[in-house]
Amino acid sequence: MKEYLDFALEIAEFAKKEMLEHFDSSFQFGFKPDRTIVTETDKKINHYLIEKVHETYPNHSVVGEEESDLNPKKQIWVCDPIDGTGVYTDGIPVSVFSLAYVEDGIPQVGVVMDPFLNKCYTAIRGEGAFCNGKPIHVNEKHLGDLGYRVNFEMWNHAKFDTLSVVGELLKSARISCIGSVARSCMAIASGHFSCDLFPGTEHANCDMAASSLIVEEAGGKVTDFEGNPQRFDQDLNGSIITNGVSHDEILQKVKTYMKTKPEVE
Amino acid sequence: MKEYLDFALEIAEFAKKEMLEHFDSSFQFGFKPDRTIVTETDKKINHYLIEKVHETYPNHSVVGEEESDLNPKKQIWVCDPIDGTGVYTDGIPVSVFSLAYVEDGIPQVGVVMDPFLNKCYTAIRGEGAFCNGKPIHVNEKHLGDLGYRVNFEMWNHAKFDTLSVVGELLKSARISCIGSVARSCMAIASGHFSCDLFPGTEHANCDMAASSLIVEEAGGKVTDFEGNPQRFDQDLNGSIITNGVSHDEILQKVKTYMKTKPEVE
Repeated sequence: MKEYLDFALEIAEFAKKEMLEHFDSSFQFGFKPDRTIVTETDKKINHYLIEKVHETYPNHSVVGEEESDLNPKKQIWVCDPIDGTGVYTDGIPVSVFSLAYVEDGIPQVGVVMDPFLNKCYTAIRGEGAFCNGKPIHVNEKHLGDLGYRVNFEMWNHAKFDTLSVVGELLKSARISCIGSVARSCMAIASGHFSCDLFPGTEHANCDMAASSLIVEEAGGKVTDFEGNPQRFDQDLNGSIITNGVSHDEILQKVKTYMKTKPEVE
Repeated sequence: MKEYLDFALEIAEFAKKEMLEHFDSSFQFGFKPDRTIVTETDKKINHYLIEKVHETYPNHSVVGEEESDLNPKKQIWVCDPIDGTGVYTDGIPVSVFSLAYVEDGIPQVGVVMDPFLNKCYTAIRGEGAFCNGKPIHVNEKHLGDLGYRVNFEMWNHAKFDTLSVVGELLKSARISCIGSVARSCMAIASGHFSCDLFPGTEHANCDMAASSLIVEEAGGKVTDFEGNPQRFDQDLNGSIITNGVSHDEILQKVKTYMKTKPEVE
């Protein structure tokens, strides 16, 4: 797996350079049919990964947020070239590059690169989580403890109405919505944040594959909104990401308060 | 006013240095009685400002988020040493330093320093808004336009339940809650974000004094939650900050959907 980690780090360095070069510039971006933003930088990083995988590991395939191989194989590279493209184009320095090596649906290697703080988060399954080579760990806070932070994501037409549970969590937690679930997961893995609620379903494995491994290797826990483990070679059913010790507390709040299919006029 | 701007810039440089030096370190922080966070860096910057004002402008006084003069005068310096202390201590690089020179409740000079991107936002009333010396302008998006972003703040026991209107706005806008209203205002002044809903009341003039001037000088609009202009030598009544062209649209949504005094169990 060390070889795969080195390969992922090489792609991450390329992504860092591209993200910094085009940040806050007048670089072209457009809107996808679902009204989400995509930039030329997303596409370029995604395409670079596909070329490199075909060249280096012809038996592997790529599942990317912007571009994927048509015939996925058992060994796949799951990538979100820029997680948090929306805030990236708005000049907020919290977006990250995310890449995982996944076998049979299980992430074995994960790399998340924060180009703005020049922090590279890595994990190999069973060997712990690291930031720039130093071990990182989740915190041990419970819901209600001082400084317990819940980050969440939300968008119109999301299957899960995270807002409906955030109103309840606000009574006992600090809340934010910084705009990148992978960056938020790295804050959990580093012991800063304590929880993230991510309503992603379609292609959401691209956002979560690397982060789920890094959070788990840092001592945290990741499940879907029903408390089940997930495969990362397919769509997700929402994700609850926590420091582990508070996972059941959050899961109960989600089960009690979270609405699915919010009313849309 | 140019002299006051130069004075404010000198304080901002001090703040930048302090904020960068102690970011993401194990620097001590504590919790105020209202469960919000304060760091030694907040206190140090605030105290430095007070010393400098007493030394340079003995007839002026200081209203700071962490420390104020006991006898406020007509000419005041209104400061939030770190706007977004919570995310600052959580290692998210979106917090800023904010300082305004206020006469009779009206901000005349404003400086907001983003230490992480090394961007200094400035305005003198009537002379436009600038980022690192270059003119900045709000965007011209209306609610519902692609890329229209509403940022908001929320906390338990806030007088205004911003969440109640965010659920409605989500149908026609991108939503975030990055953790610093002043940073969000600078994104509005720069044409990135389009709106911010800030439920601040007590001491909220410290957060908003500089930002309100910079946003207005960039072509935007700032009112309270009833659509009225505000004085910045006293507490606020919540703030709606927009690009101007969409202000009435947002105000109508707020008047229709925003609840005051959310139910707290």
